Amino acid sequence: MIRIAVDAMGGDHAPAEIVRGAVEAVSAFEVEVLLVGESQAVSAVLQKTGYRGERIILVEAPEVIGMDEHPVEALRKKKRSSLVVANELVRDGQADAVVSAGSTGAAMACSLLRLGKLPGIERPAIATTFPTLRGFSVLIDAGANADCRPVHLVKFAQMGALYAEKVLGVDNPRVGLLNIGEEETKGNELALAVYAELKKSSLNFIGNVEGRDVPAGKADVVVCDGFVGNVVLKFMEGMAGAIFHLLKEELSRDWRGMAGGLLLKPAFKRILRRTDYAEYGGAPLLGLKGVSIIAHGSSNARAIRNAIRVAKESVEKGVVEAIATGTKETEMARRETNNA
Amino acid sequence: MIRIAVDAMGGDHAPAEIVRGAVEAVSAFEVEVLLVGESQAVSAVLQKTGYRGERIILVEAPEVIGMDEHPVEALRKKKRSSLVVANELVRDGQADAVVSAGSTGAAMACSLLRLGKLPGIERPAIATTFPTLRGFSVLIDAGANADCRPVHLVKFAQMGALYAEKVLGVDNPRVGLLNIGEEETKGNELALAVYAELKKSSLNFIGNVEGRDVPAGKADVVVCDGFVGNVVLKFMEGMAGAIFHLLKEELSRDWRGMAGGLLLKPAFKRILRRTDYAEYGGAPLLGLKGVSIIAHGSSNARAIRNAIRVAKESVEKGVVEAIATGTKETEMARRETNNA
Repeated sequence: MIRIAVDAMGGDHAPAEIVRGAVEAVSAFEVEVLLVGESQAVSAVLQKTGYRGERIILVEAPEVIGMDEHPVEALRKKKRSSLVVANELVRDGQADAVVSAGSTGAAMACSLLRLGKLPGIERPAIATTFPTLRGFSVLIDAGANADCRPVHLVKFAQMGALYAEKVLGVDNPRVGLLNIGEEETKGNELALAVYAELKKSSLNFIGNVEGRDVPAGKADVVVCDGFVGNVVLKFMEGMAGAIFHLLKEELSRDWRGMAGGLLLKPAFKRILRRTDYAEYGGAPLLGLKGVSIIAHGSSNARAIRNAIRVAKESVEKGVVEAIATGTKETEMARRETNNA
Repeated sequence: MIRIAVDAMGGDHAPAEIVRGAVEAVSAFEVEVLLVGESQAVSAVLQKTGYRGERIILVEAPEVIGMDEHPVEALRKKKRSSLVVANELVRDGQADAVVSAGSTGAAMACSLLRLGKLPGIERPAIATTFPTLRGFSVLIDAGANADCRPVHLVKFAQMGALYAEKVLGVDNPRVGLLNIGEEETKGNELALAVYAELKKSSLNFIGNVEGRDVPAGKADVVVCDGFVGNVVLKFMEGMAGAIFHLLKEELSRDWRGMAGGLLLKPAFKRILRRTDYAEYGGAPLLGLKGVSIIAHGSSNARAIRNAIRVAKESVEKGVVEAIATGTKETEMARRETNNA
C-alpha cells in the first residue's frame, strides 16, 4: 500500500485539521499515513477523531517550523522538525510521498535539499490544478521561482504537460504560454524567448493565452514564471471570495434576495465547491526525486484529505519517473540534433 | 466646455457603438465630442440615433488603423487615420482629451508620439480603475510596459496615487506593491528593489499586497509592471465571466434554480454591473502632456460614454498638471537630498 508522510505540525490549523484530514484520507483511499509531529499533541487529536484503525502511524518529531520563520535558517536549526523528518522518510524509502501545509518556502527548500533534483532539472516548479469552465487545468509555476530564465519555463511546460497527462488524464495536453496578447510578437522579453522555444518543441503548444483565457480553460497547461503564477492563483482565490461576498450582501437586502438565496443554496454550494481550493488539496513540487505535495497554509481537513489523494495519484501514475524519462528523452533529442 | 476627441473608427464595434456612446455622453455630461473618422459612415450612424444637438462635431479622417496592424508601422503609414487626427486635435489645443477603443498598442504609441511625455517621465503607464469590496482601486501599469526597471514602478506609484487622489477622490491613497508575499524579503528582483524605494518615498506605502488582497481593496493603488497588470486585469474579466457562466448553468438545472434565478435577477444585475468593465469605461495613459484614455477594444456605447466621463474628469481635476508638478517636486526633493 502507498504510504504518505504528512507533516502534522505544518499549517494554520495544525495539528487538528491535519490529523482529521489524514483520518478522512485513510478512510477514503487505499493509503497509509505516517503522521509526523509531536506525538502527544497528534495522538490527542487522533483519539478525539475516534479513529482506531492501523493505517495511521505516528512518527515522533519534537520540533516545529513556524509559518514565519526564515526557510533556510529554520531548516538548518531544526533538523528534528516534523517537516524535515517527513521528507527524510521519503528520502530513506519509508514513505512514497510527503505532504505539508506549513510554510511554502520551508516545504520547498526542505524537499529540494532532502529529496534532490532530477538530473536535467535546474528549477523544480509548483504545478497547481485549478477549475475552469472546461474542467481542470494546470498552472506551472505557481510560486517556486520568482525570477526565471526562458529555459526554466520550457522545462515547466514539459513537466506540466506530463503531469496533466499522468494525473489529470488529459491526452496530448494543450500547452499555453501566459502572455499579454495572442500574437507571437507580444509579451515581455521572457515570454518572447519562451514562445520561440516552445514553438520548436514537441509539445502540443497552442501559443499565447491571455488572462481571460485561463478561467475559460483554453489551455490544459498554463506556463508562466512563479511570480505571475502566484499572483494569479491568489487573485483567483480572492476574487471568488469577493464575488460570493457581494452575492451574500445582495441576498440579505430584501425578501426577494432572501427567498432566492434559500432556493439557490444548493446551486451556490456546488459553485463554491468548484471554486474552493480545498477541493484540489495540494500542488506537487515537480522536478524532484520524489513526490512532495505543497498544501495551502490555511488547509482544513478536506484540503489535507485531497492533498493526500494528489500524493497517492502522483505516486501511482509514476509522475517522477515520467519526468525523469521525459527529461532524458529531451536531453537525448537535443544531443542528437547537436550532433547531426 | 470641455471638448473630447473620440476616435470613432477604433474598436470591435466601431463606428456604431462609439457614436452611440458619444451621444449618451453629451446628453449625460457637460462635454462636447469631436467624432473623428470617415464622416459618411459616422454621420449615417449619428442620424440613426436621432441626435440633433450641437455638442457633437464630426471631424473627417479618411484612414482607419485596424486592430491587428503593427502599431508603429500603421502610425507611420496612416497619418490621416482617425486615431492620429484625434490625437493631433489635442496636441493642437482643439480638444482637451482623446479617447480611443482601437488597438491599444497603436493608441499608446500615437499618444506618446503626438502628445509627448511630461518632463521626468520615462515610461507612461495605464492606470485602470477596478471594483473592489471597499469601492474602487487603481491598478498601474495595466499593460503599457511589459518589461520594467525599479525606477519605472516608483513613478507608476506616484502617478497612480495622484490619479486616485484627483479623480477617485481618495485622500492620501494607500499604495501597495503587488507581490507574492507580505514580507519585505519576498518577491522577484524587481519587486524587492521597488519595495526599498517605495519605503523611502513620501507616498502612503502600505507594503506588499498579494493577489488575494487586490479584490479585497486592501490598497487604493496597486503597483506592478505592465505584464503582471495586464494578465491580472484580463484574468479578472475572464473570471467574472466564468463565475456568472457557472451560475447560469446552475439556474437552468431545475425548478429551484429557475425560481431562485427569477427572484435574484435584480441582485445578479447589480453585481454584474459592479464587475463589468464597461461601467468604468477607459483607463488613462498617465505621464503624457495631455489626457489620453484607452478604452477596451470591445467597448459598447456604455463603455465609451464612461470613457468620455473619465476623460472629462481627468481634464477637470487637472491630472496632467498634478503629475507634472508632483514629478517636479519629487525631482527637486531628490536634488536637495543629493546636495545635502
